[in-house]
Amino acid sequence: MSTEEALAALRSAVGAALTTDQRRLAALTTDKSGHDSRSLPLALVTARGVEDVQATLRIANDHGIPVVPRGAGTGLAGGAIASAGDIVLSTLAMDRILEISAADELAVIEPGIINSKLNEVLATHGLWFAPDPASKAISTVGGNIATNAGGLLCAKYGVTREAVLGLKVVLADGTLLSLGHRSVKGVTGLDLTALMIGSEGTLGVIVEATVKLRVLPSGPVATIGAFFPSITAAAGASAAITAAGLRPAALELLDAAALRAIDAHLSLDLSARGDSWLLVQTDGAASAAEARAAIEIIRSHGGDAEITTDREEGERLFAIRRAFHPALEARGTVLIEDIAVPRSALPQIFAAIVDIGDRYGIEIPTVAHAGDGNLHPNFVYPAQESGGVPDQIWAAADELFVTALRLGGTLTGEHGVGILKRRWLADELGEAQLEIQRQIKRVFDPRGILNPGKVFAPES
Amino acid sequence: MSTEEALAALRSAVGAALTTDQRRLAALTTDKSGHDSRSLPLALVTARGVEDVQATLRIANDHGIPVVPRGAGTGLAGGAIASAGDIVLSTLAMDRILEISAADELAVIEPGIINSKLNEVLATHGLWFAPDPASKAISTVGGNIATNAGGLLCAKYGVTREAVLGLKVVLADGTLLSLGHRSVKGVTGLDLTALMIGSEGTLGVIVEATVKLRVLPSGPVATIGAFFPSITAAAGASAAITAAGLRPAALELLDAAALRAIDAHLSLDLSARGDSWLLVQTDGAASAAEARAAIEIIRSHGGDAEITTDREEGERLFAIRRAFHPALEARGTVLIEDIAVPRSALPQIFAAIVDIGDRYGIEIPTVAHAGDGNLHPNFVYPAQESGGVPDQIWAAADELFVTALRLGGTLTGEHGVGILKRRWLADELGEAQLEIQRQIKRVFDPRGILNPGKVFAPES
Repeated sequence: MSTEEALAALRSAVGAALTTDQRRLAALTTDKSGHDSRSLPLALVTARGVEDVQATLRIANDHGIPVVPRGAGTGLAGGAIASAGDIVLSTLAMDRILEISAADELAVIEPGIINSKLNEVLATHGLWFAPDPASKAISTVGGNIATNAGGLLCAKYGVTREAVLGLKVVLADGTLLSLGHRSVKGVTGLDLTALMIGSEGTLGVIVEATVKLRVLPSGPVATIGAFFPSITAAAGASAAITAAGLRPAALELLDAAALRAIDAHLSLDLSARGDSWLLVQTDGAASAAEARAAIEIIRSHGGDAEITTDREEGERLFAIRRAFHPALEARGTVLIEDIAVPRSALPQIFAAIVDIGDRYGIEIPTVAHAGDGNLHPNFVYPAQESGGVPDQIWAAADELFVTALRLGGTLTGEHGVGILKRRWLADELGEAQLEIQRQIKRVFDPRGILNPGKVFAPES
Repeated sequence: MSTEEALAALRSAVGAALTTDQRRLAALTTDKSGHDSRSLPLALVTARGVEDVQATLRIANDHGIPVVPRGAGTGLAGGAIASAGDIVLSTLAMDRILEISAADELAVIEPGIINSKLNEVLATHGLWFAPDPASKAISTVGGNIATNAGGLLCAKYGVTREAVLGLKVVLADGTLLSLGHRSVKGVTGLDLTALMIGSEGTLGVIVEATVKLRVLPSGPVATIGAFFPSITAAAGASAAITAAGLRPAALELLDAAALRAIDAHLSLDLSARGDSWLLVQTDGAASAAEARAAIEIIRSHGGDAEITTDREEGERLFAIRRAFHPALEARGTVLIEDIAVPRSALPQIFAAIVDIGDRYGIEIPTVAHAGDGNLHPNFVYPAQESGGVPDQIWAAADELFVTALRLGGTLTGEHGVGILKRRWLADELGEAQLEIQRQIKRVFDPRGILNPGKVFAPES
């Protein structure tokens, strides 16, 4: 059957939800990774509900046409990028909150709702969905789940996987499954909810989620900003804060190159005040006591700290951290890397970043979620004709990945594999595990229509 | 090839680790569920290391002989029960702690270590492995992982899945896989670590685990015991404690039948003091403030509360809770059920338990981990000739399961499916999901030798 027949069947099934408008399709060849396929997909279906998702997958599966599930397109690994021959299945318009239960601390939502938007509504109930990727103002909760998104608060509040009780997903053949439950505990059968979280659209399309909520932390929040004479001293202070049993909500570490980039962007002189900068925020009932203990540890590690419980002052300190990515984007195309290592290895991985940068003659400004050992080393380069990343940058990144794995860490702490990291997958998983993962993919998607080429490289 | 040839190959591979001693085998036909297969397995291999596990599985797979992985045999669902024709593969002797890292808050352990034993050693480092099934003094961490064990502290500290960073597992064909990593975050590929947790020996045999540790909570612990005039009032108080944003470490609820059973066993008069009893324990930096707030809520719900921060007094209150199961075991064989519902449904499920008990003419004493909506309704019956559970008890339990599912809950909050609940699996998962789960099982274990008949009923 021809592609034309498939599109006709699709049009008859989903009607106005289908478009082949070239301008609409042009926005789907890229995401926030800097990668661009530079080739237009066949069509876009903007699903209005579960039935549209089921119909699209059923028809695509019958015709063997690849389907790229997509939310807001804010991914950093190319996981939702489409190219020639693909149907893009967007769940962005399925953005309703179906239920909020304060008694059960859960919400039932559609996948397209924006993370911050959900939290705005929840705040009026005194509730909160904890996963907080840096993209929360623009990314969907469905996308957060599909990538098991992390963020700044994970050491204290967990990653997305810990905040999902149940999912409704549509498989490649259009079958609708309900995974998990509304109860906090549950061990009936294999944990397919957990398997689906972080599967990057390769196993199914999330059409509904039952997410865990928390009561908003009460009391004043304390924010600390501290300059250190060296990244080693800053990493040492951050490790000591964790080892003392303190659990700051955020523990962010910027290196010297990051400070220089922010200085240049905002005309500040942060880098004159220290070689690295640690941002600590404590919240909840023990906030004040934890902040006092953190300050003491910071000073004993040579840190020059300021502390505030004033909301605006706290915002001013956070604004330094938030200026990091805009500062880099002002310089060129940015590859935001995303390795993670055990916390104790932070000094070693920071040393490796400097060493790799020196050898390749590039600067690699880095921010770390220091509480959980997740680092974002950034590579800035001029936009490429090909839409890809220059080989020289990949060579440097490759050394970074190898180092993270050697230290017991991972290729990707929270951004996912997508297109950008699939070639390193076997380095981390090993061939035997990779083969098991491919077979699991085939259980869910026997014809291989779901986001093919993402996570798993095409088989030759 | 004959069974004799397989045993000869096994003996030559693992030597003294193999036994066919009838007295040793007789202990393997049951667990703590009350179920007994009443038929001796072929042999027991007490693995001394990964190589013994690999050799046993490789040989069993070649010969198509079922292998039942087993730890301490403390399961409550028959998941590690062996019968005629099985080889039992015990990891109980693989009980070393390979590493404790305070800096990275992790330990690397072998599966056979007893939960309490691990925690004794960790305590000397000021550290703690949080999963705390009631069986912790006798159950292995490998078994805790294989069943995704819960316990009393889960609402605050999470279930076992949240405390595991990585696993080494041996597949049915002897292949050794390393899943996960030492870093807190990581999203490379599908989350097979989470898939393995709670898979009850159906996907592979756990031979090593990298587990997350916590710093031991500091400061005084507060313990509250409160009598209520009705289970509805007690459940309401417990829900209000959670809704107020308090996070007690433990929140345990005993119903009237449970109090009567403890009274009879210990010659107490608890049931004269109230219709139900709530046990609350707060810990950590906000312990005192949380306990004060909890007491206020309890009293406003009609509770008669006593509070203590004295260690011995706290132990005395906990002893009431701990006397529950011994009190029932003194009466006969006990089927400990394990449903979970959303917290808000606690009054409804308690009402259903009373109703079912009335209609079947039996008492169903119940304890709930009220903070997470997990209930253990208990059925006491005379030991059966067959080694199984009387039909009448199953009929009552069946009504309980149906009610839990109707309320958005689950068949099993923390004990697992094993043999005892496999016949209800499709009721919770649906046929389509069950078929996907069976296919995933086949990816890991194509010949079906790993714990066959557990979780998934034999296919006709």
